[in-house]
Formats: sequence, C-alpha cells, structure tokens
Amino acid sequence: MGEEQPGDHDPIADLIVTYNELNSSHIEELHEEPSALEFMRFVARNTPFVVRGGAANWKATQTWTAEYLSNFLGDETVNVAVTPYGNADAPTIHPQTGSLVFAKPHEEDQSFNDFLTYVIHQEKTRGLRNSEVRYAQTQNDNLRQEYLSLYSHVPPTIHWARIALSSPHEEAKPEAVNLWIGNSLSTTALHKDNYENVYVQIRGRKHFVLLPPHCLPCVNESELKSGGYVRRQHQKTRGEEETGREEKGQLELVMEKEEDEETGKEQEVTVPFAIWDPDKPEENATRYSKLAEPMRVTLEEGDMLYLPAMWYHKVSQSCLQEGICVAVNYWYDMDFTGPLYPFTSFVRAVNQQQQEKSKE
Amino acid sequence: MGEEQPGDHDPIADLIVTYNELNSSHIEELHEEPSALEFMRFVARNTPFVVRGGAANWKATQTWTAEYLSNFLGDETVNVAVTPYGNADAPTIHPQTGSLVFAKPHEEDQSFNDFLTYVIHQEKTRGLRNSEVRYAQTQNDNLRQEYLSLYSHVPPTIHWARIALSSPHEEAKPEAVNLWIGNSLSTTALHKDNYENVYVQIRGRKHFVLLPPHCLPCVNESELKSGGYVRRQHQKTRGEEETGREEKGQLELVMEKEEDEETGKEQEVTVPFAIWDPDKPEENATRYSKLAEPMRVTLEEGDMLYLPAMWYHKVSQSCLQEGICVAVNYWYDMDFTGPLYPFTSFVRAVNQQQQEKSKE
Repeated sequence: MGEEQPGDHDPIADLIVTYNELNSSHIEELHEEPSALEFMRFVARNTPFVVRGGAANWKATQTWTAEYLSNFLGDETVNVAVTPYGNADAPTIHPQTGSLVFAKPHEEDQSFNDFLTYVIHQEKTRGLRNSEVRYAQTQNDNLRQEYLSLYSHVPPTIHWARIALSSPHEEAKPEAVNLWIGNSLSTTALHKDNYENVYVQIRGRKHFVLLPPHCLPCVNESELKSGGYVRRQHQKTRGEEETGREEKGQLELVMEKEEDEETGKEQEVTVPFAIWDPDKPEENATRYSKLAEPMRVTLEEGDMLYLPAMWYHKVSQSCLQEGICVAVNYWYDMDFTGPLYPFTSFVRAVNQQQQEKSKE
Repeated sequence: MGEEQPGDHDPIADLIVTYNELNSSHIEELHEEPSALEFMRFVARNTPFVVRGGAANWKATQTWTAEYLSNFLGDETVNVAVTPYGNADAPTIHPQTGSLVFAKPHEEDQSFNDFLTYVIHQEKTRGLRNSEVRYAQTQNDNLRQEYLSLYSHVPPTIHWARIALSSPHEEAKPEAVNLWIGNSLSTTALHKDNYENVYVQIRGRKHFVLLPPHCLPCVNESELKSGGYVRRQHQKTRGEEETGREEKGQLELVMEKEEDEETGKEQEVTVPFAIWDPDKPEENATRYSKLAEPMRVTLEEGDMLYLPAMWYHKVSQSCLQEGICVAVNYWYDMDFTGPLYPFTSFVRAVNQQQQEKSKE
C-alpha cells in the first residue's frame, strides 16, 4: 500500500488536498478566553485553537508544585498505568511474536507519594530511562473521583464551553474531568475521541500533533490484536528474603482472548487503531499519509487547547525543572446531529471499500 | 439507474441513512428571534430553523400591500423574468427536441404598475393560468438597487446573523438583499447556493422543500444544455396597426452556443443542474433518491427561515387574497473553512466515480 500512488481523480486525495487549501495547519492563538459565541465559531468549523495563559490564574496552575501535591495527597492510594516504554494504549511490537499489537497498560494501586517520587526520580535520572514508566491517566473522570480533594483547584466547567454547548433543553456538563500526571517518557499514541475536549496544561509542556477527522485514510487504522501488560510473579532472591524488601516482577504483554459467540472457540481480541505516527511519517504509511498536514502545538503551563471532537491527536510531553507533567482535561459530549459524524463515517466506508478493491 | 438498487455496503446509501437516523426531517420552530449564539449552534449543525412571526413587525410586513407598493413604486421601471410556465432557471422539456434542458427566463423591463397588475390579474383569473408568467426575481441585490426606495422598510441586516457570522477581523455584511415579487405560478427549481440564507416572507405563502448538502447523490445533478427564452418578433395584425396597440410576441427557447476554445467550433453550452424533483419522486430519480427525507416548511407572512449554506431548496408559493407573493432574502458569505465544503465535494466525487464505474 505504501508504494501505491493515489490516482489523478482520487476522491480521498482530493478531499485531503481541498481541505488543506482552505484551512491553515497553523493553530489559531488567542490571548484571552473566547466568549461562548467565539468558541461556537470554532466548533462550527471543527477547528482547534489555543488560549495562551488562559488558565494561568487557576489555583491549580498557581499551587500544584510537586511538593504541594505530595503534601496534599500524601499516601492516598491512586491508580497508575504501568508500561515498559510509556506506551499505554499504544501500537507496540510484541517482544515474542514481533507483530504489531495494541498494548494496554498494567494498572496497579500505589501510594501517591511513591508514585510521584518514582516519576520525578526517573525523569531526573538518565540511568532510569529504561525502567518501567508510570502514568496516572485513568481518564475515568478521576478528578471528580480519586483526586476529588484537588477538584476545587480547577473550575468545575469551562464557562464558554458550557454556555456554547448547552441547548435550550439541557445544560452542557463535563462528561469527565481528568487529571494526568506523568513524565516525559509517556506518550499517548495517535487516536481520537468522540468528545469536545478542552485540555489545560498545569505543569510541564505538552506537545500535540493534530489531524482533522477526514484524515482517517492517512492514519492507517488497522485491526490490531489486543493485549495488556501483566506483572509476572517475582522469584524472591535470598537478599530480599533476608531484608523483607521485594523487587517488582517484570511486565509481560499477554494477549486477550475471548470466546467466539457462534463457535464457542477461544479467539484473539482485536481493536481498530491508527498505526501511522506523524512523527515517523515513512513507517506504516498509507498512500494518503503524505498528504496530511499535521497541526502542531505545544502547551506551556497555563495554556488551554480546544481539541475538537473526532480530531486525531498524538500527545507527548516534556518536563521543566520539577520533573513532572500535570494536565487536566474536560470532555463534553459532542453533537452527533449535523454533517460531521455521518461524513466521517462516509470517509471510513469509502476508504474501506477502496482497500477491499485494491486487494481484489 | 433508477432501477438499480444500492448494495449492502454502499457508502453513499449509508451516509444518507446515518444522517437520517441522527437528524430530524421536521424543521425546528422558534417563536422569537434567536441570539447570535443560538443561531451559531444551527450554523454549526448546518440545520435550518424557522422563526414564526420573526418579521411580523417589520415595516415591510406591516405596509406592503399591493396597493401600497403600487402607489409607492408607481411607474418605475423594473426588471422582470418572463417564462411560459413559471420555470425561470429550471429544467424544462424543450418543446421542439423533447429533451430536458436548462431554461433561463427572458428578462425585460416594464413599469412596476404594469408588472404588478399582470401578476395579480393572472393570479385571480383562472383563464390566464396558461399565459406567460412574470416574476421579479433578479437576485442581484435588487433591494439595494432597483428597489432601493423600499430598502428602508426592512432591516439592513439580520442582527443575529451579523453578530454570529462576523469574525474578529471582519464584520459580516449581507452579500445581497433580494426582493421577490410574483404569483403562485412561479416555482424555483431545486438548487443550492453557497450562501448562508435568511429568507423572510412578507406577502403570501412560500413552500420550501429542503435537502441537506450530502443529498447530492439523490438530486441527479446532470449536465443540461442551457437555453434562454427570447421573445419572437410579433407580426402586427391589421387590428393592431389600426389601434396602435401591439400584442407581445411568443417566447421561444433558444439554446446557447459558445466557441470551443481549442477547436474554435461552435458548441452547445451545458450547466450541471439537479433534475430530481422531490415532489415528483418517481421521475428522474437516482438509486438514492428514495432515501432522501425532504424537510418541508411553509412560511406564512412575517415568518423567517434560516436556510443553511449548500442546502438544496425547491420553492413554490401560494397567494392570499391580495394575489401576490412578496419575499425578501439576505445572503451572507458562507465559511469555506472547516469540513462542510470539502466533505460535500467529496460526496460529489465519490458519486461521480461510482456513476462512471456503473457505465463501464
């Protein structure tokens, strides 16, 4: 596929090129928060923007140093995603089979202080770059659950999003408010969500690579076998037995199985996932990948990003002196009425049909 | 084509069906004008709405009776579109060749009073239903040109549209403000415009049949040979010579020719135009026409319609006792950024490709 060229009258290629001609791949920068109407204009265009310093005076932005968080949360138990390479929910070469699979993190509970100490220590110590990577990234509304004590340090909703996305019948409320804490070793692989997303950087920097929904044919969505990291039982060494301290077992990627509903046989679970990485454009490319013009933006501390529904985003991060990256995001339900959702499904269907034909 | 059925996995059929499942084909009715934000939510969904009585207290709505207009405009010269069947800019069977062509009206200048008298007399006199049809419908910003003296009777802009469609860099101003005067014999054939449109009924009723932009594969856009009505020279009768009065000559549909740029040969001019009529769904149908779920709305005097950019609309009218239909519409530039325009072009391209394949 990578070698094949789109034809002269290739509707998918024309779609991507037409969009590129009419839209900038440079993100619009605001320097104060938009009004609800100004925001709605971006929603109407399904186009991202960044508000530089939009969250600069949030209590979170002003107070959440590593030390503050450590004092504040102490030994509270938190859920942590653990992976060997910072590859939670990411396409990953399976170490045994060599094939590309979808890897879910091992999740384990840990005291917040132990977690934070590990993250910072790893970030600051070059030698620990090859040890396992920990990322608090549950994405299950955790700032109103596990981290509830921190919730009052951020606004409960983004006012311009609330006003704009509400209808006369129903007030728009965040479906989830998520806290993200990790270091520069964690990367979130290119994917999309069916939510309007407001993403706020609190500590460190976040680097977004963004692609609009119609770039689906560029991202090489593929059915990947799905697996999850599991921690192997660790054989205690004599030293550990003597001291009572115990090393953690290695992470092993175990593929998921499920019963076939019809045959009752066990089969491997697969998930559709983008395998093209805009930062490695030659690898896993489709014939359309080179037409994509990714939008890139780095969020600094206190910046806000509007990430429109269904946009692909790859997110990596870098830390400042403190050695941690902290972010908060708000998910609002997207509007499935109007043309965006059906049109995006249409692009998927045409792309799929074309792939099937080129196999014939 | 009409007989062929869409396949099980026909992306175009799926697009139309998915949209229908997620969107109502009943128009939303407001009972007061929306705010700019409320309007922008409709723009974002590219979805029409009607404001019942939204223009009820405009001076135009309150004063423009036939008598008032006649007194006000008197014998001012106006441009009138003349057609044999009320078929200005419409697919029409050519009387000689029997083939479907695109017919442009004959345009002629006339005193406003003569025009208005003709329109009303025809509407009220059953026997005149077969005589030629006159429609003031220049669509060239005529309310700020020819009919400038009436312009102050309507607002210069629709305030919620102005506020919503403006950008921080540029205020949105109407590209055109058009006046339409005719009777129930004129129909505007199904077509679309690349404008955001606010349509206001002043006298009589307007019946809209609406289809969203992705219904392009339903409307059977075809290359039609283009012609225009021309008034034949009339042979004076002895009676006319004696009285000095002269009948008008018959309208003849004359096909347009142009020189081929390369060969220099004369060739016929063609225009792409929808030939499916949602009110005659069996005729000129494509395999997708039956999937369309047209939205229908009748505007009463003082009602306003938001007709989103790129929506197909067929417009017919009926008169109340006065025997005239009068309407005003505001065109605002549409936003070509964002997904709507490229997606719509994509639907056209996929549909075209499919038509070519089914011919192979």
